[in-house]
Amino acid sequence: MPAQSSRNRRILLVNRPVGIPQPSDFAFDETGLVPLEDGQFLVRNCFLSVDPAQRGWANEGANYSNPVPLGSVMRALAVGEIVESRHAEYPVGHHVYGWLGWQDYAIASPKHVLTRIAAPRLPLSAYAGVLGINGLTAHLALHGIGRPKAGDTVLVSTAAGAVGSVVGQLARAAGCTTIGLSSDPAKLAMCRDRFGYDHAINYREPGLEEAISRVAPDGIDVFFDNVGGEQLDKMLRKMRVGGRVVQCGTASVPSWTPPPTGLRNERELLMRRLTWGGFVVFDHMAVFEETMHALGAMIEDGSLVYDEDVREGIACAPQALVDVFAGRNRGKVLISP
Amino acid sequence: MPAQSSRNRRILLVNRPVGIPQPSDFAFDETGLVPLEDGQFLVRNCFLSVDPAQRGWANEGANYSNPVPLGSVMRALAVGEIVESRHAEYPVGHHVYGWLGWQDYAIASPKHVLTRIAAPRLPLSAYAGVLGINGLTAHLALHGIGRPKAGDTVLVSTAAGAVGSVVGQLARAAGCTTIGLSSDPAKLAMCRDRFGYDHAINYREPGLEEAISRVAPDGIDVFFDNVGGEQLDKMLRKMRVGGRVVQCGTASVPSWTPPPTGLRNERELLMRRLTWGGFVVFDHMAVFEETMHALGAMIEDGSLVYDEDVREGIACAPQALVDVFAGRNRGKVLISP
Repeated sequence: MPAQSSRNRRILLVNRPVGIPQPSDFAFDETGLVPLEDGQFLVRNCFLSVDPAQRGWANEGANYSNPVPLGSVMRALAVGEIVESRHAEYPVGHHVYGWLGWQDYAIASPKHVLTRIAAPRLPLSAYAGVLGINGLTAHLALHGIGRPKAGDTVLVSTAAGAVGSVVGQLARAAGCTTIGLSSDPAKLAMCRDRFGYDHAINYREPGLEEAISRVAPDGIDVFFDNVGGEQLDKMLRKMRVGGRVVQCGTASVPSWTPPPTGLRNERELLMRRLTWGGFVVFDHMAVFEETMHALGAMIEDGSLVYDEDVREGIACAPQALVDVFAGRNRGKVLISP
Repeated sequence: MPAQSSRNRRILLVNRPVGIPQPSDFAFDETGLVPLEDGQFLVRNCFLSVDPAQRGWANEGANYSNPVPLGSVMRALAVGEIVESRHAEYPVGHHVYGWLGWQDYAIASPKHVLTRIAAPRLPLSAYAGVLGINGLTAHLALHGIGRPKAGDTVLVSTAAGAVGSVVGQLARAAGCTTIGLSSDPAKLAMCRDRFGYDHAINYREPGLEEAISRVAPDGIDVFFDNVGGEQLDKMLRKMRVGGRVVQCGTASVPSWTPPPTGLRNERELLMRRLTWGGFVVFDHMAVFEETMHALGAMIEDGSLVYDEDVREGIACAPQALVDVFAGRNRGKVLISP
């Protein structure tokens, strides 16, 4: 394929969003491709990833990465095929997963790659979700910070989501009782029927605390939290002495500007001797490939299932991000450009 | 001394305080002593301890221990001498530190003892402070949760206090840059001149954040927090990526009923990949005596100094507790009954 002659369709960030990015913060364009330099390779994106973390990448202000510059391609992960190469270790025909952006083609170098996929054993889309940062986050944060032991009770927020569904299954595989939180009846059913949670609870219904106490009368050992906010405040007060809280996301808090307030939690932390740790998956790149292989083996032997919500057409990426924050998705959202 | 014939003066808790116990929540009485049973020993208290943790022990509601029953002797630590014994391992003449209460004499058994002091090498009062829960807390929480490495920057609240002053010295001994927070000019001077802090900052003065940034331009690696509240909220935002926060107390928050609010901190935790741990010293009783000996060796070789504020007369104990919360003390407050 004469890639350089191809047109490259791109989604640019054109307004600095406060809070959740809206479709009006993005623009669509189409450009040509410039020739590769030595050490670069051209990737044709097969699946673009849509991730809650993109809010933070797009927002102004302190974050774990610099904000996406206005007017540039929206920062995004994707999985793609190398279609042209001037790097000997990245040959044409191999696949890579990494910082490829919301666009058809990416001119990449090794620094953009998170995992290399020489010979995919699973559908390519899996490498952008359950074998990408979602599954990697679930595995590394659960075992690194949550440290579940057999017999523990593990609570997961956004329990049917791309991260949460993996956390629940990994915790069950570790011999834990698992409780999933969601607000959507269909997702609650999936928690129970598909992801093997022992209990699935609607956090929007009255009596959340009582419901947790009923299924976890001795309290929660590990809380894997993707949402923050009031759900977090309530669940901290259900933790067992010595419990661990994994702070993996804050998706329920619509904006951090101005700084929102909530219950003071330091006394809960003290009385319950909690360990509360913040997790960013990109700190752990050195173990991505081995963790990807461990997750892949679980998928191949049937002990780990996953769902995908693949949408057609690059133009729908901005709305897909809004949908993720609104919970209007069924599994990992990917864009087939 | 025919102890059984002695009168026992006691401070009883008679009202359930909300927040900081006031003198009106206590009553003074005097009783006789009943004979010892097998396995018991009689301790004449030499120094009664006054601790911020007594607020929690006196308050109603969830805590790490059951509240002190109304009408009973106020729960307190003390160091005393065994003056009569019906336990072979606790002979007359030995000293013990433990749950002896705000009273002249305690009928004790091994479960009341935290450390045994067969042959004191330091003044007896030290065993109720720098070698008691204050020094033990400093040592075990700093090394257990804070994990300071040489070159780290360690920030301490109530930096001149009975716990904080030891934390600062231990962190300095570990090769760290140390920053102490206090609001009292005399205590700030002590931080610098006596406890060896590299920097001492008045947290009540405007520009606290800027002052921290000046002395710790790369951020804080370890925050040892005894106070919670707004000071905690501000300092979390000065932490370096990968930092550790030790939650050892919440002394700045006057009451937890009704639940107070403050800034949401989960995003700080996440972005900075903090580890925030709650610490209660009584979880670590198995290592009290070895830690006490380690601290004692530092005092003997001059690398650890401490201050005491010894007050005369058991009747002043309730006011002394109020004074501790108001910062009206110079070092560890003890009562010589």
